[in-house]
Amino acid sequence: MTTDEQQVLDRIDRARRRRPRVREERITMAHGAGGKATHTLVEALFLDAFRNPQLERLEDQAVFPAAGGRFAFTTDSYVVSPLFFPGGDIGELAVNGTVNDLAVSGASPLHLSAGFILEEGFPVADLQRIVASMAAAAAAANVTVVTGDTKVVQRGKADGCYITTAGVGVLERDVELGADRARPGDAVLVSGPIGDHGVTIMLARGELEISSDIASDTAPLAGLVDALLDAVPRGVRCLRDATRGGVATILNEVAAASDVAVVVDEAAVPMRAEVRGASEILGIDPLYVACEGRMVVVVDGAQAPAALDALRSHPLGAGAAVVGTVAADPPALVLLRTEFGGTRIVDMLIGDPLPRIC
Amino acid sequence: MTTDEQQVLDRIDRARRRRPRVREERITMAHGAGGKATHTLVEALFLDAFRNPQLERLEDQAVFPAAGGRFAFTTDSYVVSPLFFPGGDIGELAVNGTVNDLAVSGASPLHLSAGFILEEGFPVADLQRIVASMAAAAAAANVTVVTGDTKVVQRGKADGCYITTAGVGVLERDVELGADRARPGDAVLVSGPIGDHGVTIMLARGELEISSDIASDTAPLAGLVDALLDAVPRGVRCLRDATRGGVATILNEVAAASDVAVVVDEAAVPMRAEVRGASEILGIDPLYVACEGRMVVVVDGAQAPAALDALRSHPLGAGAAVVGTVAADPPALVLLRTEFGGTRIVDMLIGDPLPRIC
Repeated sequence: MTTDEQQVLDRIDRARRRRPRVREERITMAHGAGGKATHTLVEALFLDAFRNPQLERLEDQAVFPAAGGRFAFTTDSYVVSPLFFPGGDIGELAVNGTVNDLAVSGASPLHLSAGFILEEGFPVADLQRIVASMAAAAAAANVTVVTGDTKVVQRGKADGCYITTAGVGVLERDVELGADRARPGDAVLVSGPIGDHGVTIMLARGELEISSDIASDTAPLAGLVDALLDAVPRGVRCLRDATRGGVATILNEVAAASDVAVVVDEAAVPMRAEVRGASEILGIDPLYVACEGRMVVVVDGAQAPAALDALRSHPLGAGAAVVGTVAADPPALVLLRTEFGGTRIVDMLIGDPLPRIC
Repeated sequence: MTTDEQQVLDRIDRARRRRPRVREERITMAHGAGGKATHTLVEALFLDAFRNPQLERLEDQAVFPAAGGRFAFTTDSYVVSPLFFPGGDIGELAVNGTVNDLAVSGASPLHLSAGFILEEGFPVADLQRIVASMAAAAAAANVTVVTGDTKVVQRGKADGCYITTAGVGVLERDVELGADRARPGDAVLVSGPIGDHGVTIMLARGELEISSDIASDTAPLAGLVDALLDAVPRGVRCLRDATRGGVATILNEVAAASDVAVVVDEAAVPMRAEVRGASEILGIDPLYVACEGRMVVVVDGAQAPAALDALRSHPLGAGAAVVGTVAADPPALVLLRTEFGGTRIVDMLIGDPLPRIC
């Protein structure tokens, strides 16, 4: 920590002695007006949870030093419903999702921003819980939330709480990953059982009368990516976290961008019985169901065993499996070899069977 | 442009020959599902408007090279109502606001991200208009929108369109600006007439039966900041764009962070007659009304004439004025010398007289 940063923290510590408190039980329009109520909310809730020198300066931007090189930059908005679900909540999702979008480029995530759109009347206790969960997820992923914004919209004009995170990371490795880099002969892996997150959200809505022990797989993937790229520094073509649209959508993106066929062996795709069962009841293909802590790996076929070992050596990749291969023909298509011996085309998702999943 | 980037553009150009089109007139839940409809929306609307090699890769993150140094990172969510108003719209605001939060740190804005939360049923033509306006604002500010996300929430769960932009910039100058750097003897300037944006939004809602020629002052301030810091490379303490909470809130932040008094001369504050009149009718103090293209400058008193000249030499600072001074006592307070010869305390904004202004 620099002397400047220490001074900032000292000043904040002094201010803490007259520690601000949010007295309201629910968010009011004033919390979004930029005046006293906004400042109290920021100081009492956000600074307290995300404590770090950049954020504590309370400027309209964070300033951070970095060595030159290649940087990764990403954003995602989160509108998941319900906000709290088994295995996580919107806050944890908003951190992990953005961390993962950085990690799958091979970047080390550095800093996050967080923009909150709150609905008038939203319980302050819920916001506090969400922010605590974001702080814990950020600490686990070794990133800091360095800048943010809060807006409030009138009752009925939002759905409790939406969060948009953006993230900056640095590419310290000499890798070039992309959906357009798959080549015939490559292997396709997934890092664990698919569909846990999406099914958890559907069940948490209570629209289906099913109870289950399943929980979201939301997790930060940077460590798993590191383990993979340490073990297989050359030959990894593409990494993607399989979120909205599921594994099938990612594979379609790879097939289209690389102009190759991706051939998936249905029996090889790891999946919990609960996900299989719930997908049947919902009438959807589990290949389209979102994960929030799983990634698709396309790797040079010769490196597939090493890649699989590397994934399985990490707790978040314990359930990894090789699920398919890349072929030259038919270009831009994903084919599924079914458990019954047939082959069918897996197209991109049409329609929206699973809304508000992230 | 590198060979890689050229190849990406070539590939995209080939894809353009089978140019995707959004056939729906209104946003559907499927546009947020991550499948075919989302891809069509992204390719038909966003890629077309924001065309640049980073975005066109369609990865979950943009990768950009940068020399080492200090970087600025910021975010803001935009929920302005109405979405279109005289002088601009939510898209232009979302670009300029984030560009300005970078610029006032002394940074050169580089890249933006954009997260859209759309309401089911939102007219695609309106989205197209907003995105075109973002693209024009980005071009004017010399930044590129390199990464983004789109979510859709059910009808009634949002208010048309919310946008969250984040931005990354690089600090090429050796400046340290901050609200905690004001010193007794400093001068306080504003870069032009205050309150235009906030009053424009209030009038655009049509709740007041007033018609007026006033328009939002939304503008990118990086050029104005450059002109100022070129002319006065030393002695500028703090720059802030006076958005939500207005000039009064900024001055309170400076007074509190620097533990100084800020003394404002009411007669010196530039303000259009329409803003003065509308504020009277609304019963609010124009010092709290948001601008979106004005900044507050705190500068060493000896440098104030040079700073004023530099601001006035730029089209966006033509109406700049010295409006006050920094004193030692009373600490952490903003005082207004009124036009009638009295002095009153200008506290931070209490309550929310002007909701959804940005």
